[in-house]
Amino acid sequence: MSFNTFGHLFRVTTWGESHGPAIGATVDGCPPGVALSEADLQPWLDRRKPGTSKFTTQRKEPDQVRILSGVFEGRTTGTPIQLMIENTDQRSKDYGDIAQAFRPGHADITYHQKYGVRDYRGGGRSSARETASRVAAGGVARAVLAALVPGLRISGYMMQMGPKAIDRSRFDAAVIEGNPFWCPDPVAAADWAVYLDELRLAHNSVGAVIEVVAEGVPAGLGAPLYAKLDSDLASAMMSINAVKAVEIGDGMAAACLTGVENADEIRMGATGPEFLSNHAGGILGGISTGQPVVCRFAVKPTSSILTPRRTINQRGEEVDLITKGRHDPCVGIRAVPVGEAMMACVLLDHLLMDRAQTGGQRGPIGS
Amino acid sequence: MSFNTFGHLFRVTTWGESHGPAIGATVDGCPPGVALSEADLQPWLDRRKPGTSKFTTQRKEPDQVRILSGVFEGRTTGTPIQLMIENTDQRSKDYGDIAQAFRPGHADITYHQKYGVRDYRGGGRSSARETASRVAAGGVARAVLAALVPGLRISGYMMQMGPKAIDRSRFDAAVIEGNPFWCPDPVAAADWAVYLDELRLAHNSVGAVIEVVAEGVPAGLGAPLYAKLDSDLASAMMSINAVKAVEIGDGMAAACLTGVENADEIRMGATGPEFLSNHAGGILGGISTGQPVVCRFAVKPTSSILTPRRTINQRGEEVDLITKGRHDPCVGIRAVPVGEAMMACVLLDHLLMDRAQTGGQRGPIGS
Amino acid sequence: MSFNTFGHLFRVTTWGESHGPAIGATVDGCPPGVALSEADLQPWLDRRKPGTSKFTTQRKEPDQVRILSGVFEGRTTGTPIQLMIENTDQRSKDYGDIAQAFRPGHADITYHQKYGVRDYRGGGRSSARETASRVAAGGVARAVLAALVPGLRISGYMMQMGPKAIDRSRFDAAVIEGNPFWCPDPVAAADWAVYLDELRLAHNSVGAVIEVVAEGVPAGLGAPLYAKLDSDLASAMMSINAVKAVEIGDGMAAACLTGVENADEIRMGATGPEFLSNHAGGILGGISTGQPVVCRFAVKPTSSILTPRRTINQRGEEVDLITKGRHDPCVGIRAVPVGEAMMACVLLDHLLMDRAQTGGQRGPIGS
Amino acid sequence: MSFNTFGHLFRVTTWGESHGPAIGATVDGCPPGVALSEADLQPWLDRRKPGTSKFTTQRKEPDQVRILSGVFEGRTTGTPIQLMIENTDQRSKDYGDIAQAFRPGHADITYHQKYGVRDYRGGGRSSARETASRVAAGGVARAVLAALVPGLRISGYMMQMGPKAIDRSRFDAAVIEGNPFWCPDPVAAADWAVYLDELRLAHNSVGAVIEVVAEGVPAGLGAPLYAKLDSDLASAMMSINAVKAVEIGDGMAAACLTGVENADEIRMGATGPEFLSNHAGGILGGISTGQPVVCRFAVKPTSSILTPRRTINQRGEEVDLITKGRHDPCVGIRAVPVGEAMMACVLLDHLLMDRAQTGGQRGPIGS
Repeated sequence: MSFNTFGHLFRVTTWGESHGPAIGATVDGCPPGVALSEADLQPWLDRRKPGTSKFTTQRKEPDQVRILSGVFEGRTTGTPIQLMIENTDQRSKDYGDIAQAFRPGHADITYHQKYGVRDYRGGGRSSARETASRVAAGGVARAVLAALVPGLRISGYMMQMGPKAIDRSRFDAAVIEGNPFWCPDPVAAADWAVYLDELRLAHNSVGAVIEVVAEGVPAGLGAPLYAKLDSDLASAMMSINAVKAVEIGDGMAAACLTGVENADEIRMGATGPEFLSNHAGGILGGISTGQPVVCRFAVKPTSSILTPRRTINQRGEEVDLITKGRHDPCVGIRAVPVGEAMMACVLLDHLLMDRAQTGGQRGPIGS
Repeated sequence: MSFNTFGHLFRVTTWGESHGPAIGATVDGCPPGVALSEADLQPWLDRRKPGTSKFTTQRKEPDQVRILSGVFEGRTTGTPIQLMIENTDQRSKDYGDIAQAFRPGHADITYHQKYGVRDYRGGGRSSARETASRVAAGGVARAVLAALVPGLRISGYMMQMGPKAIDRSRFDAAVIEGNPFWCPDPVAAADWAVYLDELRLAHNSVGAVIEVVAEGVPAGLGAPLYAKLDSDLASAMMSINAVKAVEIGDGMAAACLTGVENADEIRMGATGPEFLSNHAGGILGGISTGQPVVCRFAVKPTSSILTPRRTINQRGEEVDLITKGRHDPCVGIRAVPVGEAMMACVLLDHLLMDRAQTGGQRGPIGS
Repeated sequence: MSFNTFGHLFRVTTWGESHGPAIGATVDGCPPGVALSEADLQPWLDRRKPGTSKFTTQRKEPDQVRILSGVFEGRTTGTPIQLMIENTDQRSKDYGDIAQAFRPGHADITYHQKYGVRDYRGGGRSSARETASRVAAGGVARAVLAALVPGLRISGYMMQMGPKAIDRSRFDAAVIEGNPFWCPDPVAAADWAVYLDELRLAHNSVGAVIEVVAEGVPAGLGAPLYAKLDSDLASAMMSINAVKAVEIGDGMAAACLTGVENADEIRMGATGPEFLSNHAGGILGGISTGQPVVCRFAVKPTSSILTPRRTINQRGEEVDLITKGRHDPCVGIRAVPVGEAMMACVLLDHLLMDRAQTGGQRGPIGS
Repeated sequence: MSFNTFGHLFRVTTWGESHGPAIGATVDGCPPGVALSEADLQPWLDRRKPGTSKFTTQRKEPDQVRILSGVFEGRTTGTPIQLMIENTDQRSKDYGDIAQAFRPGHADITYHQKYGVRDYRGGGRSSARETASRVAAGGVARAVLAALVPGLRISGYMMQMGPKAIDRSRFDAAVIEGNPFWCPDPVAAADWAVYLDELRLAHNSVGAVIEVVAEGVPAGLGAPLYAKLDSDLASAMMSINAVKAVEIGDGMAAACLTGVENADEIRMGATGPEFLSNHAGGILGGISTGQPVVCRFAVKPTSSILTPRRTINQRGEEVDLITKGRHDPCVGIRAVPVGEAMMACVLLDHLLMDRAQTGGQRGPIGS
């Protein structure tokens, strides 16, 4: 888990800049013999693809993924899988203004200070475009999980746009794919459409909260103490561009609970332990309980906006900067498939680590 | 960063169980030539030590740390530093009830399911006692940071106990060390004392929010995309027992901001860039800006309480469980020095990674 | 250092199969600001390229390397460098015979047993073609070393072909590049040409010994005890296809020495310690001494030969196998630039690790 | 695999100096539920223990190992196992002469140059005493292997002392434990006793070659390309103090073979493939074949000798140095149990990696 590589055993190294010839991911450690083709990956990429509504960047990228290695006659071979996505719609001329000036709230200044050189075109390496590589790699993880843990289901959706949260009582999984926000509350979705349009026209942007839930996760995934399942999820989600917070289960609200309230009581079900609540978000002591794994994260508003903001340039001059180019008014929208992809990668990685150490056997209860 | 090791280059491997002969940390990758003795580490351990007030566990542990290797004639040698803390006040008889039954909200059940065997005495490896090892290792990191970055200061405090948050307008750093809660608001501290005493007598416990701030962090620490400074902080803090959420800068509240509000505008100061606000918490694109690094985390309430909760045992029988033994009514209190220790470890680790890759040089601004 | 990634901080992940669309290397952790272009890498690839003489495989591959990321306006940016080499001359029909049968001495059988599926075309992932990716990555390492340690020089050559060793008294660095064997002894080179031609026509192949020497390596690179410079060199060289042994300094012959003979005595020179001999091969206790780092490795003969050998196929049938296709009669020849590339990668990796831990400062002698 | 940690999943971090209070190993990633006690480890330590004959150092160390964590009620818990061995017979006064002067052939000078400070007492961290920690960790690996792969047997012995090699035709496994050299040739053992005694009395020392063989290793362990089984063995053996070369199978001699000779032909046996020879040393393409894994390594002569050698000291003064203290005239002898321990650690590590990636399933042959 270092620099541009994510994962312990299922290891994803992403590479590429927003306006270079291509981006991609090198996936190492994939189990062999799993059916995989480009057609299995493309649908996930299509969900994250820019330009699908007026609420995402108008850059036109087909985001066509190619598998260059590691798959033979339709099955993974256990060797590295190279996933490449060519960049086709780079308009580098849009970015002249930020070649020298640093966008407030953006990585421009820190990349410059650390490296002394940066590919400023579209944010270069720090562009959210990198997340396409994660989604591709997540597609590989999903294919493996489907083979190894057939009942596992990962689902992401947006919980909140700016200050506007969904009403959980209206939660309807069926509507998530039916609106441009992956919103499970149809009333909120309609409200957000108006709200975001106003912001967009006002040359502004806004943050969001995304929730990703994995159901059917076997008990026993995770490890103490620095490879906890929740520790790795926190690292995974916080590594996504613009994320500023990660919660597991009740998250920040857990601070408000008493021990009596927080205890997820346990009863004996037909096939094993059953929990009467899930404040823990499916993880105790860093190890999965078998309940749904629940993870939320907050995405800050897009920094690239058409409203002028005060900043400096490389020469140390104070300037006012408007960021032209094509940007998402709410980058949180496209973070939904990215969060799902990271969840898939983390779960598969921990599944492999678990079968390494324990062989996949579980301590018996009641038998 | 795997299983029981934390860090990329400054690597801390903790070991030991709550009721075994000793616990400790193996610290590898420490820079050589840094003045270090047991006397440098002990004060940090004393801050975390149990039994210092009625608000923490009454277990009496001197938490005396011994340096078994890696230091010669008062200086680090660059070889592994073994830190050992003997356990002296183990009352294993307290734990008969949980040898078979699983405490709700606790790692008992997941350790059993994953490993098939667990040291149930005091929670074994999942005990918060492990955090003493982190504090010792953090003391080593602090000594190195003091030598390499003299102006760096790390400060932790409690922001919220249960639903009771501090009033930031009353923030007074001087009172933090003067109350048993590391609370920077003297009014809140007094209020919490009454509140927690009631909870304790009611055989209950409560959660908390801790904030850790590092000032004087040089710009340029961190790396894209999976070794971001914030990604590693998230992993570090989430790895602490009972933590359920991690925030950087504005954290979850960043979701509510617009891009106009969120932009930390930049002006040119006497010695370099100056930011007019710090919504980012000192980190942009995973790399430090030079502003204070601000990290918060939520700790859930202690699971071991004297109020009976419904659960099952290893035989699959449904039981009601009261957890005897000596427990913290608000385990968040002692998480303050632990959070500081993790911050120190993360910052030093990134300082070493930065000088590996860049040699510590910074891209110039305005010169 | 796991699966398909080499290195601790300068990390090279190679990917690709002999007969897939492309092969390549993802280089992470590269220092920023180093001048780099495809033209800097191509000469190293040209040295390893097949088909340059009748003594190497007749496969025609231009081995043109493309840089897809991590370089901007002619300088490294510190982000991952993706190096891609397209495969252009795949004649997969040559490999029908080995789709089912396992070549003796080859990885066919072990890949099948481990993964259950293998890309048999040209050996797939186990093909020596993978080493082109190493040479490309080594070119990046060389460019960085040239910037950071200007005096450092890496030179590889063949010491022995089959039983025919060079005569060290005829060693002439100037002839190395002038014969198809990278042989520093002109008499041996002429002898080998006849010998290898006979073997080739007899449908046979032969092994070799390669030596790689790095001069100008600063003292102090390496680390105890499992990241020793020699330990990492051993791992690096043994990871090259067909290598069966690695020696440092006197290597196996060190076993025959007495302590009196083996002691590289030290005198004080004008600029620091001077050693009177170099049995150690420039490494003591896993750390470089400042003397030339000397590493040798043995390459076994090519397994793919036109002489029939007894084997089995996937159905368990016993067969006699002739390996058609285009193969090197002495794969050791093309291992010379590969060994140099691995030396470059190891040295740079250790240089970065050293400046991480020590900041590059050296303990003073005599001042 | 970095600095003082060995292994990918079964990770051993050794710590401690020759003359500090204790040395030890932190073993992380151990499978749970394996029977383990100090009594299981002690016999392996007793084999390496100093002072067992006049041919090893006369330092008297009981090398009593204590398990401080990770084992509960006689079984491993899956959490870190801390192994501690107290140092009891430190005579630091012996080492006054080398506090300032650098022993030729020894790590004194490189540790000084790299770290600026070194624990000179008995060589500190670079002492062969560190290998006791490896043997203890290897004992844990053996216990796990015994549980997971019952038929696996690891056996080490000395093949050569100085220029005196054994005669393989006299190889008798039964005599290995019956002489102080772990020599499988009784004639050579007698010869070596006279030879080494003469060297010892002449204040000299000598090198050795050790062979370690593992039988019953399942096919399929190892991975391309930088985590090859042989690559990791090379790294493991080269990390042992004083080792200068590592060979797999025919090793350096493989260079002399033709492809016809080198091909280990395969026939179909009752239970699977059978190889007619084992030039490969049980490894093809970095993956085990199921044949015995054969590894050899050369140990240089002990650098600490009573014969004066020319050197310098920290002040840059040229001096003649005699190394007093208690040293092994042939440190290769005690390297035998160390080589076995490293073999055990590598095999277990790869067994865990294999079941992570493949689940332990094998591609079928003939069924």
